[in-house]
Formats: sequence, C-alpha cells, structure tokens
Amino acid sequence: MRIEILCTGDEILTGKTINTNYAHMAQRLGEAGLEVVWGTTVGDDRASLVSAFQQAAARADAVIVNGGLGPTVDDLSQEVAAEAAGVPLVLHEEWLARMEAFYLRRNRVMPANNRKQAMLPQGCEFIDNPIGTACGFAVSIDKARFYFTPGVPREMKKMLDEQIMPRLLARAGTPGVTRLKRFHSFGIGESRADEMLSDIEAMAPGVKLGFQAHYPQLETKLALRGATTAELDATLAPLEAEVRKRLGNFIVAEDTASLESVVLDRLRSLGGSLAVAESFTGGGIAARLLNVAGAEALFRRGVVSRDAAQLAATVGVAGADFSPALAEQVARALRDQSGASHAVAVLVTLDEGADGMQIGGDINIGLADAGGAVVRQARLLGGRDWVRLGAVEMGLDSLRRRLLGLPVDERLDFERR
Amino acid sequence: MRIEILCTGDEILTGKTINTNYAHMAQRLGEAGLEVVWGTTVGDDRASLVSAFQQAAARADAVIVNGGLGPTVDDLSQEVAAEAAGVPLVLHEEWLARMEAFYLRRNRVMPANNRKQAMLPQGCEFIDNPIGTACGFAVSIDKARFYFTPGVPREMKKMLDEQIMPRLLARAGTPGVTRLKRFHSFGIGESRADEMLSDIEAMAPGVKLGFQAHYPQLETKLALRGATTAELDATLAPLEAEVRKRLGNFIVAEDTASLESVVLDRLRSLGGSLAVAESFTGGGIAARLLNVAGAEALFRRGVVSRDAAQLAATVGVAGADFSPALAEQVARALRDQSGASHAVAVLVTLDEGADGMQIGGDINIGLADAGGAVVRQARLLGGRDWVRLGAVEMGLDSLRRRLLGLPVDERLDFERR
Repeated sequence: MRIEILCTGDEILTGKTINTNYAHMAQRLGEAGLEVVWGTTVGDDRASLVSAFQQAAARADAVIVNGGLGPTVDDLSQEVAAEAAGVPLVLHEEWLARMEAFYLRRNRVMPANNRKQAMLPQGCEFIDNPIGTACGFAVSIDKARFYFTPGVPREMKKMLDEQIMPRLLARAGTPGVTRLKRFHSFGIGESRADEMLSDIEAMAPGVKLGFQAHYPQLETKLALRGATTAELDATLAPLEAEVRKRLGNFIVAEDTASLESVVLDRLRSLGGSLAVAESFTGGGIAARLLNVAGAEALFRRGVVSRDAAQLAATVGVAGADFSPALAEQVARALRDQSGASHAVAVLVTLDEGADGMQIGGDINIGLADAGGAVVRQARLLGGRDWVRLGAVEMGLDSLRRRLLGLPVDERLDFERR
Repeated sequence: MRIEILCTGDEILTGKTINTNYAHMAQRLGEAGLEVVWGTTVGDDRASLVSAFQQAAARADAVIVNGGLGPTVDDLSQEVAAEAAGVPLVLHEEWLARMEAFYLRRNRVMPANNRKQAMLPQGCEFIDNPIGTACGFAVSIDKARFYFTPGVPREMKKMLDEQIMPRLLARAGTPGVTRLKRFHSFGIGESRADEMLSDIEAMAPGVKLGFQAHYPQLETKLALRGATTAELDATLAPLEAEVRKRLGNFIVAEDTASLESVVLDRLRSLGGSLAVAESFTGGGIAARLLNVAGAEALFRRGVVSRDAAQLAATVGVAGADFSPALAEQVARALRDQSGASHAVAVLVTLDEGADGMQIGGDINIGLADAGGAVVRQARLLGGRDWVRLGAVEMGLDSLRRRLLGLPVDERLDFERR
C-alpha cells in the first residue's frame, strides 16, 4: 500500500513552523510496517490544495492530510475535500452537539465560527477527536482513501494511533493492533546494539527492531502488530526479557520514563534526597532533574562552579583541581552540609585549545551516601558540547546505578581511557 | 515566480530525521521575497525521484532539490537529474581536482567512490561548495530551472545564501544582494511589536518586516534586498536606528549575539565576574551562561535549591520563604562569599496545584554589585514550563539591564502584577 502524507498550512509551507508532525507520522507508520512513499506540503491556498489532492489521489492508495480543520476562513480542508470528492458539505449534527457540550463544560458559549468544524463532506466516514474541536474524517477521491487529521500535534498523535493506523492496517490487509516498546540506554553505540540484538526479529514474526540515536542516549524500539492486545502482550513478554538481558545495566529507562525520572522515583522510594555539585556541566544536571514535576521535594541543593577552588570552598573543603579525590571529598562534604541522603559531584576538566572534535574532557564523578563514597573516572572526546552532554548523562547514570546497586564503572562504548 | 522545494532521502521521508532543511530554506527565501508554493519529499528511490522531478517541472518555475549528492550508491540526484534533462553524466574535471586537493590537505587519499560526486549532467551550471565535497549544479527540465544542493545543513545554508538566492533573484527579475537584520527582544509581545513598528516598511521600499516569537524572546527581522552591499548598508542604517529607538531597552541582543553572550561580554569588559543563586529555574540560568565559550572565566559560582531555607543556608543567611527581602540578602551574601563582582538571585514561588495555564509564579530577583543591591519583583502566569522559561530570561535580562545601567523594572507585556 502506497501512503502519502499531505501537510497543509502557510506556517508549514513558509518554514515558520518546522514540520515535526510529518516526521512523527512517517515514523509511527513505518514502525507499524506501513510505508510512506511521498510527502507533499502546500499552503492554505484553494488551488494548491485542489491540485495536491488530485495528484495525491493519482499517486497513492492512502493519503493522510494534516491541518486545515480549524474554525477560521483559511482552514479549507473540509471544503476542498468535498469538492475533490464531488459531494456537498453537510452538517454533522452529532459533532456540533459534541462541540457545544465541550464548550459548555468549560462554561463558555461556542463561538459561531466553530460550526464550520462540523461541516463535513456528505457520506464521509467520521473520525473521532476526543480531545479537540477538529474532528477527523475519511473520504475516497478516485481510488485513494483520504484521512483528514488536525494540525494540533497532541490531537493528531492520538487520532493517528487510535483511529487512522487501525484503518490503514485493515486496508493493507493486516488488521489488528500495534504496539511500540521503547528502551532508552546510555553507553552503547547503535552499531553495537544492532549486533547485540541482531536475532531478536527472528524470535517473533512481524516484530520490527529499530534504533534512534540521540546522543548521549540510544533508543531501541520493538514495533509489533497482532490481532489483539492480549496477543501483543504474549509476543512481547519474552522479547522484552531478552532485550533487558542483553542490554543489561545500560538500559536507563523504558517507554515514557526518563533517566532522570528513574533516578527520582528510586530516591523517592528509598525516602532519600539529593544534592549535586557540578563544574563544566554548568547546572545541566540540576536542570534535568528539576524539570521533572515533584523533583523539588527530593532535590535539596545544587552548587555550580567551573573553578575547583571555588567549588570546593562552597562546600567547605580545599581543592586546587578537579581530581578524583576532590570529587569524593566534595560529594561527602556536600552530603553532610545539605543533609541529603545522596550527593553526587561531577567534575570535568576540559582540554585546552579551540573547540573541535579533538577536544576532550576528563570526568571525575564522586557519589556519597550512607554506605560511603565511590568515584567514577572517565574520558570523553568530541568537542565541548559532546563532552558536556556526555558528562551530564554520566553523572545521572552513575547516580542511577548507585541507587539501584549496579556497578558504577561499566565501560561505555564512547569512552576513552 | 513559483518556487518548489524538493527534499530527497530515506531519512527525511521516513521521519527519522526532522526536516529542518526545508524550514530553513523556505524561511530564507520568504525573507528575500521569494515565495515557496510547494514542498515535496521523496526517498532515495529512482522511480519516485524521476516522477517528482517531472511533476515539479510541470508545476514550478524554479525547483530547489536538497540531498542525494553524496558518494554512495543510494545518492541518485545527479543521475536522475541527467535522465530528466535528457543528457548524459560527464566528469567535471575541475571539481574532481578540487576534491582531491581537499583530501590532500587533510593528509588523506580520496576514496574512489567520491569520484561519483564530480559526475554532473552535461552542460549543467556548476555551483560551488567551498566547504564540502558535494558541489551543487543547475539544469533546466522542461521550463523549470532545477538547483541541486547538498543535504548537510551547513553546506546547504551557505550555498543557498551565496549561490542559489542571487540566481533566483536574478531569475525573478530582481537581481542583487540580500541582507537579514535581526533584533532579539524580551518583554514585548508580537502584536505590540508589530504595532510599534508598523510604519517601518514604509520608510524604505523593498524592506520586509517580520517577527518570530519563540517564548520568552521575540525576534524582529528586517529583510532587505538591493543592488550592492553599500546600498544595503545605506538603506539599513536609519531603519536599524529607528527599530533600536522604538524597541529600546527591550532589545537584548542583535544578529548572532544572545542575551547571555551580551551579559558575559559586558561583564568581561568591566573586568567583573558573576555568581548566581537559583530556585525553581533549577540551574537553567547557570546552564545558559556556561554554554557560552569562555564563560568559565567569568562565572564564579552557582547555587541551586527549591527550598528557601536550604538556599539561604548555602550562602550563610537565614530565610524561610522566597521573599523580595531574601532575594536581596542572598544576592549580597553570595557576592561576598564568592568574591564575584556581581551576584544575582532568582527566587521563584510557584503556585500550588496541578499544572496548567492557570499556574503562575512569583519571581523575586535580587541583584548585588559594588553599587549596592536592587530587587525586581514580577508575576508570570501560564504553567510550570512557561514560568520557568520566563524566570530564566528575566534573571538574565535583569542582570543585563543592571550591567548596562538601564532600568531593571520596566514592565513586560506578559507580566501580571
């Protein structure tokens, strides 16, 4: 089945908004084995829309149209869809009632122009949007089936997963449900993960293994489809166990969890709290943690300085350079001073010279808790940003490992010693 | 002139890579008054490329093709371009020699498959790429002129500005040079800036005023074109002066400078140094500053805590809540303790309750320097992230204002009191 994604809207066409909707849709479909073969972008322009619809109908079996379902005059998708399908627009009474109820629950009166969002091509298939006022719909134009989706990312994503993909899978002759299982790891490169998991796909037919590297983390994805949710659960269980076994301690989080949320959840369950000392990472570790809702109850104190003497003085010790010994001392002193159950110090000495791939950093991580203190040493290479991002991740990951009782000094693929 | 952007490559088609190249190109062209009317995305697939080229040739006057100029077998742009233009591929001796010299300078031998990058459609117009091995070229297919550009963003951007845009402007009957002047402001909303500058375009023909809001900053852009660089300088000077006068103290930086680089440059020129205390911003202020190369020489210390008593204790004062008085005390104490010439404390009390648009934060900013201390109070509304981003910006901007001798408490458009 040839699928086309047709994105509409002046904001996208002119580049004012980066088209992340396209990337999300193409990726989700690909993960389910649905191949996108063409992408088109046009603005809020009637003539362009008409010809884009006609051309897509001639090229593809299924077309997902994104955007243009809003209440304003420049939202033309329903109108042009009706024109291209050769039918009039008719009022969808049920959707109008739903919208009015939606506004009523918010103690507001529905603006008159929202009525436009309930005008759909006669005979179309209604597609629900439980979280917005732009409903979706499907019509056939020539031999292609067109699915219309809202431009608001949150609404589009939900409609794609829950409504559009089951319809596309059924149309492709493979009806059923899909699932995407994600593992986030730190310390393994994509090519090595690929090697380690090369035979996973063979363990279950129809499972698709994929990777997405966003340094310093790697995302490993298992995409499945099956007849029922129960079947997916049964297929996935042994695969999940195998991936966990092979990637082992390098898995920092799964699905929507993050390294920092795992650290905070573990701290919370231990009844603990945290203090962090940073140098070159410049508050980046504290910021990652404090972005998580509820972190404030666990994060007691952060100190930042690029100068060893300054940083040491802040916690009442003496030090002249970012040595392993100072990392341990700072962590211990910070823990005592702040009253936190756990303290981590991430001290980085960056190479001198102009920035570039040859610039590296020596990283000393000190971890202190009721059980004493440990130090993790590492060297990363690849320029300022690379070292900084890697050091933030390594600091958080060392903390995760310590909190979970895992070895803190497992060698990372991109580490130099 | 109808312009189409045609993006090629499986990474883009499948959504693995978000298509930022498209947005950059469309935006740059729009700023120069060149209108993009269509966007197409296809993969590294011969049949798709051939039909995408044919369809674009039928639709547009000018087509910019991005990607597919690499040395590997899946890079098909030259080959398909030659096929569509009805000419053979021939070796461009000069480019081959340039590539060989490029490798020689790096003490490496050019891999054999790079030769492919010098195979161009016979009779095409060569387009230079001074920073990579993928040269550009232009050919005519039907009545449309096709411009081929590399997928590497840095190379594409340079080629677009220096080579493609002058050609397109000449083709559109408006030859010359273009310039984009940018002002970054904090505290003025897009609609008010639009009002304040509404008659700027009328001051000089051909000048295009544009805005891009990326909260908490607003970017105001003047796009110009003219016959020569000297002409542009002369046109721009009075416009720049007028924008600076109207947006006044709200302009935090211009062009490639940033708020944080302006703060650090000013500190450096004063021979000063800095210490920062943060609460809810969680290291975000320190991280913004320390991301700037050379910041380490000026940034002496940062402390972070969401707990008032903890934060106060870190600098040796007593405090129970994030009051204006505590902001001043912490700034003064931190300055004394760290030996920095300037200290800023940004203390935020976030509203309680579930996150949402109704959640706000009270912001107290204390600034201490040799001249004494001042406090800036503000309230922002709009949810956790909104408040945090706003507080980071307001902390940095208050510091900028203090360093430049400007009033610290000018009211912002999105502030609630």
